[in-house]
Amino acid sequence: MDTTNLPKMLYGGDYNPEQWDASIWPEDMRLLELAGMNIATVNVFSWAMLQPGEDNYDFETLDRIMDMLGANGIYACLATGTGAHPAWMARRHPDVLRTDFQGRKRKFGGRHNSCPNSPTYRMYAQRLADKLGERYKNHPALLLWHVSNEYGGDCYCDNCEAAFRVWLQQKYGSLDKLNEQWNTRFWGHTFYDWEEIVLPNALSEQWSDTRTNFQGISLDYARFNSDGMLDCYKLEYEALKKHTPDIPVTTNLMGTYKPLDYFKWAKHMDIVAWDNYPGMDTPVSLTAMTHDLMRGLKGGKPFLLMEQTPSQQNWQAYNTLKRPGVMRLWSYQAVAHGSDSVMFFQLRRSVGACEKYHGALIEHVGHEHTRVFRECAQLGDELRRLEGKLLGSRLPSRIAILFDWENRWAIEYSSGPSVDLKYVDEVQRYYKALYELGHAVDIVSFEDDLAAYDIVLAPVMYMVKPGMAARIERFVADGGDFVTTFFSGIVNENDLVTLGGYPGELRKVLGIWAEEIDALFPGRMNSIVMKEAIGELQGSYGCSLLCDLIHAEGAETIAEYGDDFYAGMPALTRNRFGDGEAWYVASSPDDAFLQGFLGELCRRRNILPLPGKAPGVEVTRREKDGQSYLFVLNHNEQAATIDLGSVNGTDLLSGRAVAGEVVLNGRDVLIVEHLA
Amino acid sequence: MDTTNLPKMLYGGDYNPEQWDASIWPEDMRLLELAGMNIATVNVFSWAMLQPGEDNYDFETLDRIMDMLGANGIYACLATGTGAHPAWMARRHPDVLRTDFQGRKRKFGGRHNSCPNSPTYRMYAQRLADKLGERYKNHPALLLWHVSNEYGGDCYCDNCEAAFRVWLQQKYGSLDKLNEQWNTRFWGHTFYDWEEIVLPNALSEQWSDTRTNFQGISLDYARFNSDGMLDCYKLEYEALKKHTPDIPVTTNLMGTYKPLDYFKWAKHMDIVAWDNYPGMDTPVSLTAMTHDLMRGLKGGKPFLLMEQTPSQQNWQAYNTLKRPGVMRLWSYQAVAHGSDSVMFFQLRRSVGACEKYHGALIEHVGHEHTRVFRECAQLGDELRRLEGKLLGSRLPSRIAILFDWENRWAIEYSSGPSVDLKYVDEVQRYYKALYELGHAVDIVSFEDDLAAYDIVLAPVMYMVKPGMAARIERFVADGGDFVTTFFSGIVNENDLVTLGGYPGELRKVLGIWAEEIDALFPGRMNSIVMKEAIGELQGSYGCSLLCDLIHAEGAETIAEYGDDFYAGMPALTRNRFGDGEAWYVASSPDDAFLQGFLGELCRRRNILPLPGKAPGVEVTRREKDGQSYLFVLNHNEQAATIDLGSVNGTDLLSGRAVAGEVVLNGRDVLIVEHLA
Amino acid sequence: MDTTNLPKMLYGGDYNPEQWDASIWPEDMRLLELAGMNIATVNVFSWAMLQPGEDNYDFETLDRIMDMLGANGIYACLATGTGAHPAWMARRHPDVLRTDFQGRKRKFGGRHNSCPNSPTYRMYAQRLADKLGERYKNHPALLLWHVSNEYGGDCYCDNCEAAFRVWLQQKYGSLDKLNEQWNTRFWGHTFYDWEEIVLPNALSEQWSDTRTNFQGISLDYARFNSDGMLDCYKLEYEALKKHTPDIPVTTNLMGTYKPLDYFKWAKHMDIVAWDNYPGMDTPVSLTAMTHDLMRGLKGGKPFLLMEQTPSQQNWQAYNTLKRPGVMRLWSYQAVAHGSDSVMFFQLRRSVGACEKYHGALIEHVGHEHTRVFRECAQLGDELRRLEGKLLGSRLPSRIAILFDWENRWAIEYSSGPSVDLKYVDEVQRYYKALYELGHAVDIVSFEDDLAAYDIVLAPVMYMVKPGMAARIERFVADGGDFVTTFFSGIVNENDLVTLGGYPGELRKVLGIWAEEIDALFPGRMNSIVMKEAIGELQGSYGCSLLCDLIHAEGAETIAEYGDDFYAGMPALTRNRFGDGEAWYVASSPDDAFLQGFLGELCRRRNILPLPGKAPGVEVTRREKDGQSYLFVLNHNEQAATIDLGSVNGTDLLSGRAVAGEVVLNGRDVLIVEHLA
Repeated sequence: MDTTNLPKMLYGGDYNPEQWDASIWPEDMRLLELAGMNIATVNVFSWAMLQPGEDNYDFETLDRIMDMLGANGIYACLATGTGAHPAWMARRHPDVLRTDFQGRKRKFGGRHNSCPNSPTYRMYAQRLADKLGERYKNHPALLLWHVSNEYGGDCYCDNCEAAFRVWLQQKYGSLDKLNEQWNTRFWGHTFYDWEEIVLPNALSEQWSDTRTNFQGISLDYARFNSDGMLDCYKLEYEALKKHTPDIPVTTNLMGTYKPLDYFKWAKHMDIVAWDNYPGMDTPVSLTAMTHDLMRGLKGGKPFLLMEQTPSQQNWQAYNTLKRPGVMRLWSYQAVAHGSDSVMFFQLRRSVGACEKYHGALIEHVGHEHTRVFRECAQLGDELRRLEGKLLGSRLPSRIAILFDWENRWAIEYSSGPSVDLKYVDEVQRYYKALYELGHAVDIVSFEDDLAAYDIVLAPVMYMVKPGMAARIERFVADGGDFVTTFFSGIVNENDLVTLGGYPGELRKVLGIWAEEIDALFPGRMNSIVMKEAIGELQGSYGCSLLCDLIHAEGAETIAEYGDDFYAGMPALTRNRFGDGEAWYVASSPDDAFLQGFLGELCRRRNILPLPGKAPGVEVTRREKDGQSYLFVLNHNEQAATIDLGSVNGTDLLSGRAVAGEVVLNGRDVLIVEHLA
Repeated sequence: MDTTNLPKMLYGGDYNPEQWDASIWPEDMRLLELAGMNIATVNVFSWAMLQPGEDNYDFETLDRIMDMLGANGIYACLATGTGAHPAWMARRHPDVLRTDFQGRKRKFGGRHNSCPNSPTYRMYAQRLADKLGERYKNHPALLLWHVSNEYGGDCYCDNCEAAFRVWLQQKYGSLDKLNEQWNTRFWGHTFYDWEEIVLPNALSEQWSDTRTNFQGISLDYARFNSDGMLDCYKLEYEALKKHTPDIPVTTNLMGTYKPLDYFKWAKHMDIVAWDNYPGMDTPVSLTAMTHDLMRGLKGGKPFLLMEQTPSQQNWQAYNTLKRPGVMRLWSYQAVAHGSDSVMFFQLRRSVGACEKYHGALIEHVGHEHTRVFRECAQLGDELRRLEGKLLGSRLPSRIAILFDWENRWAIEYSSGPSVDLKYVDEVQRYYKALYELGHAVDIVSFEDDLAAYDIVLAPVMYMVKPGMAARIERFVADGGDFVTTFFSGIVNENDLVTLGGYPGELRKVLGIWAEEIDALFPGRMNSIVMKEAIGELQGSYGCSLLCDLIHAEGAETIAEYGDDFYAGMPALTRNRFGDGEAWYVASSPDDAFLQGFLGELCRRRNILPLPGKAPGVEVTRREKDGQSYLFVLNHNEQAATIDLGSVNGTDLLSGRAVAGEVVLNGRDVLIVEHLA
Repeated sequence: MDTTNLPKMLYGGDYNPEQWDASIWPEDMRLLELAGMNIATVNVFSWAMLQPGEDNYDFETLDRIMDMLGANGIYACLATGTGAHPAWMARRHPDVLRTDFQGRKRKFGGRHNSCPNSPTYRMYAQRLADKLGERYKNHPALLLWHVSNEYGGDCYCDNCEAAFRVWLQQKYGSLDKLNEQWNTRFWGHTFYDWEEIVLPNALSEQWSDTRTNFQGISLDYARFNSDGMLDCYKLEYEALKKHTPDIPVTTNLMGTYKPLDYFKWAKHMDIVAWDNYPGMDTPVSLTAMTHDLMRGLKGGKPFLLMEQTPSQQNWQAYNTLKRPGVMRLWSYQAVAHGSDSVMFFQLRRSVGACEKYHGALIEHVGHEHTRVFRECAQLGDELRRLEGKLLGSRLPSRIAILFDWENRWAIEYSSGPSVDLKYVDEVQRYYKALYELGHAVDIVSFEDDLAAYDIVLAPVMYMVKPGMAARIERFVADGGDFVTTFFSGIVNENDLVTLGGYPGELRKVLGIWAEEIDALFPGRMNSIVMKEAIGELQGSYGCSLLCDLIHAEGAETIAEYGDDFYAGMPALTRNRFGDGEAWYVASSPDDAFLQGFLGELCRRRNILPLPGKAPGVEVTRREKDGQSYLFVLNHNEQAATIDLGSVNGTDLLSGRAVAGEVVLNGRDVLIVEHLA
């Protein structure tokens, strides 16, 4: 199933009429239509209503909701409702309750609270999905299935421990292999029986979510935990598909959420959907990167923005209002990066409990005469006019950034060299440089085909999975530019060091040897001194965090360290390998270096930035059927003058013909349709 | 029983002779007399001594202590000793041990350590109170009963869980009602059986002491916990009253201690008593406010200062000495706000365990030749000369500040809009403005009669309890000035939002609608710009924390926001309603605004400040039998010149006639007796 | 056994060949020889290998390792391997698992993880030591036994609780005595049965590792815990000694590690050994002090530096490389303070798990062509040339600083007066002043003979143990200078206050009375004003932390406080007592005061500083057989000019004759052999 099957640009959001008296429903319908909405996500937290007891199901209210949506021409994104188990189930079947990282058995409470290896949970969740599939398979409102909600967390109960041992047996086959890969002879942790293995938590091998005695077991637990939840998802997916093979099934992801390997998950999702909740101080380039990551999960296909707040969040420390225009601007940012929907949590604000101060289309006041409603209605009006053109369009790019969850886990479990090394931060540094230059970027997995790209960036490729090094060599030999950094090529997929000198399996393609890795205290800098100018890259730049002390072994030294006892050692190298070049950035450079360096790589490849880029202004381009759609998003409060260069087209929002220099109001957006 | 029955101004404190060899007791008596003391609080932690085993009681030592006090003319404030259970009881009856917020069953240790719903604890505590009542009912030294000690903490054991379900059944009657009020359909938490309800703690619905998924259950647990301890208190109270109906019974409260609803407790106390332990950096205006709150618990009747340290505390991070004169100054501050006692913890410093570095009348050196002893003895001498005059006198005020524990719990459980919103801080801002202006203030509960006041301030009246809105409307209609603020009128007593627009039930009397609530990051400010000068209030003032975006709906806009997208929207409104006015302060203003605003309200009402106010100088007035007693407390290290205005009287401490301008030494005090 | 029996200066470190394929071992041997190494610590974490099951032992691999060492002329420091129990043991005998401070039973994981009172652990650990002793008693490679590894941590399981009660019965004999010494009548904690006593942890009397309700029980638990681990050590010690009475037995200590009373431990160690892991920001004077403390554990005998990293650590937040020369410099610092070894963790870097980023002689690259290897090999070459001369030499000093673990525990358990009072910090202030002046210092226990010293410093001698006061009086009466400070003489060995005025038992020798103790907030200062100049000590100095308010009672006031209400009270007193003088420093002075004060004390005693001292340059002297060895260590990055004064000799490292002014390169070292 491909997202291009969507009938229109989806506009709507989470809607929980079962939490209200039905007398209010007609008013909801009136207001949704007034806001131009066409979809409602329903049934997300209704398990207790649908199954009030062991063998007792009641779909009457949900029937009425579905019928009402259908009658009002609103699609249903129908959730399976398994994101929080009923209280009675927790009481009668305590195996549904999780045991936390501290080893404490939890009691009933919260959401996303079920043990993924609970037999009760799996049985009842699958059964509920099955019943929903059976009941609503032919309902006219049904457009999309939404399995559970925001999968996450972890569990350390006995059921999980038993399941972990089975998972390990399947992975390793023998204890000998496991002992070797986890290096259990260290500290004499050799296992002689599978039953001796316990889950790594605060009572055993792990000190915290990032500190462990044995990276091997912690990494495997992280995989096991992600897989276990994915199994739960798949059980429901299959139950639904049995009834509705043609209705797409998804679940709402959470961007860069660390515990789940979303590349693995996306294989089992018909369309990617995610919930976007930036803080008021989140850099817009990080939101942009996260959209691109979500788009990358399924190889560039359009995705769904499943949730965002119309204005205020409730769970941040300081829940600032979205300023006028910001909701619209950020909605278009999602579309600009590949979303074929704009959806909110929530359509009507709940009257009690912890999300009652989270923004909604319909606020507690209950009518449409609010700033938030007006902004939503204006956007609904615009989207209705756009939809046919953008739906299913793609974002072309010649540059890829590699991203991998397992690599991230391994880096952040590492004991040393620096607690400040955070994978997403380093990826973001490279992304941001390209973003500021106006270049389109794809974010792809370690498994994706690289042949389509001219330039591949792999910040902190610490873990080299089987076959990866050969694939990179082939990419470079075939003419590609490959860039990687300090602390790369160190370990295999189980965090065992590749002996014989860093960067291990990447040493050949990079032509260097990293002898030592220095960790800099916060605030301490070294410098990267260019041996000669390369394009606009010249002179000296700052760097920090880690400094690899490398030796060129075939590579050419392009820049050197300027300070400390390793001044004069290479800080940036280039290795010609076959028809391409492999670059090594030995430290974490400042933004100026990265923009200069990556800009020069692009220029040499004749990769041109998108037109319209200006300070605080974001640009992307979607394409479809020979048409291009240039998005220009002014994140500044003030108006900006932008230069559209050779682009000559029509702004789909205003209907204006635009070309050359254009003045764009603060927080305003252009979507310029022009020939590709 | 009324506190005016006290025979004299009480001066003394906690005394634990059972922790010492009896050979030292005569020296204690000599030193107490030397210090002018007339009361000793005894038996506070003697349970293990009085009941060394299951059915084994031994009152011999306590008999000797009581007789010694009687023989030396010292009153006994006789504690029931149930503030810490014996070790043997914890071993034989583990139900007395609490289960903590983390769900961990505690072992023997600490104090204030008994589960309030433990059958063993309740049975034995009541029995001990009964035995004490029986034994000492006619003892000549007995003046006052002191039940247990500093009730506090919480418990999450199975006994508490069962009792909570009973408490809920009594409150709600049906699960339907409970589900509705807690809005359990949110996240599908519907309860179908009372047994499904578990206590809200770190294992279920609560993340921390201020973060919860369901405000309803957390609020009810807070009430239940306060009530459960109050039940324990009442069991002992009744046991004592049976024997001594005319001896007042109290327990020592802790000022603004959050977990217990002291307004509810005070109904069951014959006289309010509290322990005052400010840090060296606590603002004196906060101590003043806390005294006024304690006085307010029983409608303005005098209270007892049950504990303060003569000099040093032991449990602060940095236990600075009270500077010379500070103990005396702060003792008079208590009296100035309505205390009819000055009492210390402790009379003799313990020789071991955690309070041995807490100050005492008799220090480890054991004699009277210390600075601390000399200061205590001087104060004792002064108090002896004052007592007849002040005893039972009242503090008149035409201004009231509303304070409510349930409102506070609800505000601080709220998820959003800002973690920096703390109820006591906001109340303190209004109090402090009046304090700096020299105005007397009463602090009263949401239930108290408002008719006695001209001005009623209700900072952050988030929760509107049943009937409250009507009572406020009547107060204003009858000519009162009512002031409330941002984030008011939002929820009912179970934290369910009042739909239809904020400030909900207060909307009518205030004549406004609050459409949105913006949260400001720390350090961010907006401004309140006066549309025209009102008295001395003119120009622009700073505000922060939260900004309600309000619309005047009948109210007059007195000031507007100066910044951000809501510049020009009302920041201060006044609604004429019947014969009075209702004001809304839409943000948290700076001190200058509040002094200007509240000063102007007072001037219009012809409420005059007390004479003698100067920077760093505090003023209050007690009245009795046609006499006024003006307290002037110089908190400065340096001398201050104060102006007594029309007051012409005699300083009771020095015996001097005083009038007009008077120079008051650093940390010195005047108590000017004059005609009312 | 005396360390002087060592055959040579030991150079080597931890070596774990059993964690590697044996094919790599010959290369290890080649590299160890190339680096000039002569000892390898083996078998530290091999329990799981040696005992793969209940009655199943396998020494084959260890035999091969020992034989290989022997064949290559490398000594074995043979560990007993009991530092981490096998996984099978944890599964079959859960009593080996600890219960943590939070009361949580741990599962298998980590190291140093066995309950010290587990019958299983004790039985199997002793048996393993016995088997090793039997098997290797005549092995030619065996030089030294290394029991377990870095003993530490604590346990709160039921076995420990039962053992604690037995320990208490042995200490106190009766509950009456225990109740009295713990002052359990406070808060009514009287125990009537030994079974009522529970371990002090987060579930009972202790809030955290430094906060307790009852200092008595917490202190005794700290002693019990240290003793329990020592018992484990002794069980193995005896098992080994039975087989090899002449082979020295040790275990690796951790410097100022708080939980173990190393003075008590050292009595049972044939030679002291310790692991030195300073952070890159640890002051070198603190490392120097720690070396001196370790030397002091056995009355000044040489010790072993058992572990240090060749370059990088892995478990700090920021694991900076040791700069070139630093490893050599710090190795000589150990030797300069009495070490007869330089040993590393680790010889070969592990390939997986949490220490794989800890530095090693043989890095992951696997060859000798690294900076780290070259520096190690150079040092090996130098040490080989030095060894005969320094081995067994002593460091003479006429100044002692008293240090005591029980005193430290008591100070830091104290509730009040200031959380910033840390015993090691205060000791370090006095040590550092002498270090900066170039004076040699011994650090001795509260039990050591003081007669050998002219000056004895006892910073914060809070606890006065039985007989201690008399011994100090005798020391002073016999002509010694004794210096102690604020918060001294307060309690007995069970933290009961000595009544009658501070400093209690020290009051007589000091001639003062401390009436009050003021705690200063961070950043607040008072001043010490000299009444007249004493040597170079004149004018005013800063002081902070705590200020005792003292009265001279026979002592002479040398300096007074300059500020606050106690300005003019004594801040420094001197009491002539017999032939000596007892000084009291009433606050925590700045470095300038301490250098001036201690310098003057030394001058009056004609104690001369060592030659060669300069800023950033450290000096020590070892002596043996009529020869002196002056160590001059330049901790600066830059060269320093030092003045050798009257010393005229030969630098053992360069072979140069040196005298008078010498230029010493940055991070370089002189070892000047000259006549004593």
